[in-house]
Amino acid sequence: MTRASTGKVTTIGFDADDTLWHNEQFFRITQDRFADLLADYAERPHLEDRLLAAERRNLGQYGFGIKGFVLSMIETAIEVTDDRVPARVIRELIEAGQDMLSHPIDLLPHAEETVTALAADYRVLLITKGDLLDQERKLAQSGLGELFDGVEIVSDKTPKVYADIFARHGEGAGAALMVGNSLRSDVIPVIEAGGWGVYVPHGLTWELEKADPPTLNPRYRELADLGELPGAIQAL
Amino acid sequence: MTRASTGKVTTIGFDADDTLWHNEQFFRITQDRFADLLADYAERPHLEDRLLAAERRNLGQYGFGIKGFVLSMIETAIEVTDDRVPARVIRELIEAGQDMLSHPIDLLPHAEETVTALAADYRVLLITKGDLLDQERKLAQSGLGELFDGVEIVSDKTPKVYADIFARHGEGAGAALMVGNSLRSDVIPVIEAGGWGVYVPHGLTWELEKADPPTLNPRYRELADLGELPGAIQAL
Repeated sequence: MTRASTGKVTTIGFDADDTLWHNEQFFRITQDRFADLLADYAERPHLEDRLLAAERRNLGQYGFGIKGFVLSMIETAIEVTDDRVPARVIRELIEAGQDMLSHPIDLLPHAEETVTALAADYRVLLITKGDLLDQERKLAQSGLGELFDGVEIVSDKTPKVYADIFARHGEGAGAALMVGNSLRSDVIPVIEAGGWGVYVPHGLTWELEKADPPTLNPRYRELADLGELPGAIQAL
Repeated sequence: MTRASTGKVTTIGFDADDTLWHNEQFFRITQDRFADLLADYAERPHLEDRLLAAERRNLGQYGFGIKGFVLSMIETAIEVTDDRVPARVIRELIEAGQDMLSHPIDLLPHAEETVTALAADYRVLLITKGDLLDQERKLAQSGLGELFDGVEIVSDKTPKVYADIFARHGEGAGAALMVGNSLRSDVIPVIEAGGWGVYVPHGLTWELEKADPPTLNPRYRELADLGELPGAIQAL
């Protein structure tokens, strides 16, 4: 599991949400439901702006994940209605959050075959942020849990967090590669820590995860899908 | 840090909330505020029963922590008012949760001196559950972070979770001792995993953390406060 097939990379970190399985689409479905429920009170673009502002404002206290998202939706519903939102709307928002917390796992193309293939020759880690219990549930339901040599659920993905994880589980960030759909969380901080960052875009990206790709950095790669990852690692 | 001063125990796990610092009192203050806000709709004992039922019902989805507590309060407020709760009450519940997420850390007596003393001779771990980011914030603010050889924020405290942690960080549960204020979470599952469980009662205990003490088990101890822990370990 921890033998390296190249002299360069011994450890591969995988992001989870929208890298191995669908996630953002459930947030979008819930935001549509949110907009419908509040259609009498606010225009959709305004409502989305207010929600994003609340999510940004609350990130330092709530962190990432569904529970904080639901609390920010409720706060926004109260705000845009000047305290007039009916309780049944709040109830529906809570139920929408509970639906999100029990949605079935839908693996992305090539996720299983790629993790399986790479686990034979590299140390493979799952590195994700969000609500602790929810991420554990999704990993368990994904059926991929046994493939990983380590699972790290973190409150944020910074260069220091990656440096610590790859020092603890491997030969440091210099011998590590991280793959994910968020330039801001999965790619740029790993490159800053001295590792390789591989971007696999997903059609849907949350506004707060967007960033410019570090196109000129020699340790940056962009792939169309996870199926290209083993070949890209061979060619590093 | 990892030398053992007895032949028996090499690793000591500390619970955090209401073991090293106050926690439950902030939940009680918020529940008082909750009862006041809903005084026109529900008698206090009935309200508390409904809230506890909601917390129990939602534990499998929300896990432990403040965000789930706030969502369960909101759900209960809607339920006991038959959808008539005013939005300003919900707003106050959200603000109460945000207050909880920023309350200052107030260390319990003997916490700092005991962790400092034991860190010199044992591997010391912090093992806690709750919201990931909130637990990290509290540890950072406590000033105790540098004393610990490892920090494990987990979604639940089961015998398997303890066995895994003590295998990863030490010589297994058989050479480990866990100290905390919850019989259900900190003491009984560690003893079941083969370790020592030390109960340090705190005046306030959440209903869902209560259990009968395993008084007759030879690996169980009860102490009046953390200051007694070093002596108790010497006498094992």
